[in-house]
Amino acid sequence: MKSREVHLVGRPPGTPTPDDFRVVEADIGDPGPGEVLVRNLFLSVDPYMRGRMRDRKSYVAPFGLGATMTGGAVGQVVESQVPGLFPGDHVLSNFGWREVFTCAGDEVTPLGELRAPASAYLGVLGMPGMTAYTGLFGAASLKDGETVFVSGAAGAVGSVAGQIAKIKGCRVVGTAGSAEKVRYLVDDLAFDHAFDYHEGQPRQHIREGAPEGVDVFFDNVGGELLQAGIGAMREFGRIALCGAISMYNDTEAAPGPTNLARAIGLGLNIRGFLVRHYRHMRKDFMRDVSGWLADGQLTYRETVYEGIESAPDAFIGLFTGANIGKMVVRLDDAG
Amino acid sequence: MKSREVHLVGRPPGTPTPDDFRVVEADIGDPGPGEVLVRNLFLSVDPYMRGRMRDRKSYVAPFGLGATMTGGAVGQVVESQVPGLFPGDHVLSNFGWREVFTCAGDEVTPLGELRAPASAYLGVLGMPGMTAYTGLFGAASLKDGETVFVSGAAGAVGSVAGQIAKIKGCRVVGTAGSAEKVRYLVDDLAFDHAFDYHEGQPRQHIREGAPEGVDVFFDNVGGELLQAGIGAMREFGRIALCGAISMYNDTEAAPGPTNLARAIGLGLNIRGFLVRHYRHMRKDFMRDVSGWLADGQLTYRETVYEGIESAPDAFIGLFTGANIGKMVVRLDDAG
Repeated sequence: MKSREVHLVGRPPGTPTPDDFRVVEADIGDPGPGEVLVRNLFLSVDPYMRGRMRDRKSYVAPFGLGATMTGGAVGQVVESQVPGLFPGDHVLSNFGWREVFTCAGDEVTPLGELRAPASAYLGVLGMPGMTAYTGLFGAASLKDGETVFVSGAAGAVGSVAGQIAKIKGCRVVGTAGSAEKVRYLVDDLAFDHAFDYHEGQPRQHIREGAPEGVDVFFDNVGGELLQAGIGAMREFGRIALCGAISMYNDTEAAPGPTNLARAIGLGLNIRGFLVRHYRHMRKDFMRDVSGWLADGQLTYRETVYEGIESAPDAFIGLFTGANIGKMVVRLDDAG
Repeated sequence: MKSREVHLVGRPPGTPTPDDFRVVEADIGDPGPGEVLVRNLFLSVDPYMRGRMRDRKSYVAPFGLGATMTGGAVGQVVESQVPGLFPGDHVLSNFGWREVFTCAGDEVTPLGELRAPASAYLGVLGMPGMTAYTGLFGAASLKDGETVFVSGAAGAVGSVAGQIAKIKGCRVVGTAGSAEKVRYLVDDLAFDHAFDYHEGQPRQHIREGAPEGVDVFFDNVGGELLQAGIGAMREFGRIALCGAISMYNDTEAAPGPTNLARAIGLGLNIRGFLVRHYRHMRKDFMRDVSGWLADGQLTYRETVYEGIESAPDAFIGLFTGANIGKMVVRLDDAG
């Protein structure tokens, strides 16, 4: 069977371009004993993948040059030689940007009966959603009714983090990169205050939205917004360092926040985290978030690019602010 | 009775000079009912006082211009109209750089029978010692046998922090600002590795001393050493932000660490703290540290300046590295 997949063919020092990727056709063999053949419905593009494009040690291994961009995908079993896995079953996998693949049965995660559209398992019910949940309750020890500031608030992680905080009775301030996103935060997600970080002084905006200061700052952006957030914290505040998307394409190290010493007098706790540091919270996450989805307390949006050949553009779009909510690539057969 | 006291008379933007202080004579009245008259034996000069010289809101109120420099001091009661307080009793107070003072009985803390020389209550058994103790066990959750890096390791706080970590079976690496201090750390305090931060690359020195990486970084210095320490952390490491003495005299905000995003992948926990955030640990601190002092596991050094007129020089010396261990000012009557 024919499949198309996207290879990494360049290691850009700065912002990636389409030339750093190549769509390649591959022949996929029939599944052997203990194997399944899967056709992907949706591919995930995520900011953390940018780090894997660099050839250096990090918390995940670098992508190989000339190899397929791996990452999350959701698909359906086409053929199975695995007991208990049947054609039509939805599965989550980590083989990335490819249409069809064969693998061992234990290399996919069956999703059972879907509680939401398949693509949600790459977003609100997947890694980004669990990142939001574990960042708030694990890294930042969020308590009901606190004041929360979220950067990158209209993205896959930030939009879930802000909504969960609202569900917990918090006052929530968010920042994003366009007027449309700011409207989304306020009108659709009921943030108490939101602002476009291109306009005016972030520090001033946060003060307007959180005049008493911020208890929990969920940072997806780093750079100037990290500095502004530190400047807005109040005593014993917690900062969950989740990402630093503003810096991922930097060709040299940008200066860090000049106001880190505020942490001393205020007793701030700044904690970096990866979702995998909180694996033990998976059950709680699935129970809570699927419950909130079911009763309508939590909603989500996606930005959908069509066809595997659009995966590089979708990915690059993460860094230009092209997405509201989770960015996914729908493959032609996803219906 | 005559007393001399030191007033703050200038607010230097950068490094303080003797001209920012003035020694003034004052008349001290007899103690009224409920009051004591105290003659100080030792005055404390501490880096945190630098922040109080600036006219801005912080975690402690600024010193007034033309007012006495307040801070820790240990003295003896001369006259008492307070039940239970008798002439000769040693008391800790916070009235600062003055020889003699009268105050209400509840404004001094009686020290009871001394377990160490009086000056130790300004150092190893006082605020700096408790800062070391609470930073390790409170802010950084130190566990036995971990690898610890201490900046400002020959100072009042760092020298205690490093020794406590050694008592807890840790591997301890320290940095200080002279060859003499480095010898002190290695020869007298049994640090496993120490280096002069003026020589070579701090990051490389830490790697030599802690090839497997650092679990707990106790930072008193900030700036480049904070950056180097972050670069040396290993997964789930904790950084106790205690001070940033390298930056206290900066006239403009220095760039922060460029490598803060390492905290994300490694799950680092960076926690700022003040000793007062951990008041509940006072009993444990006094029990443990006085025990270690008594059995010789923990030692201390002091740098002693003589006479109240030397207080400004002693204070300024904190920023030029003039002290090994706690810097104190001995008053003429201290014997």
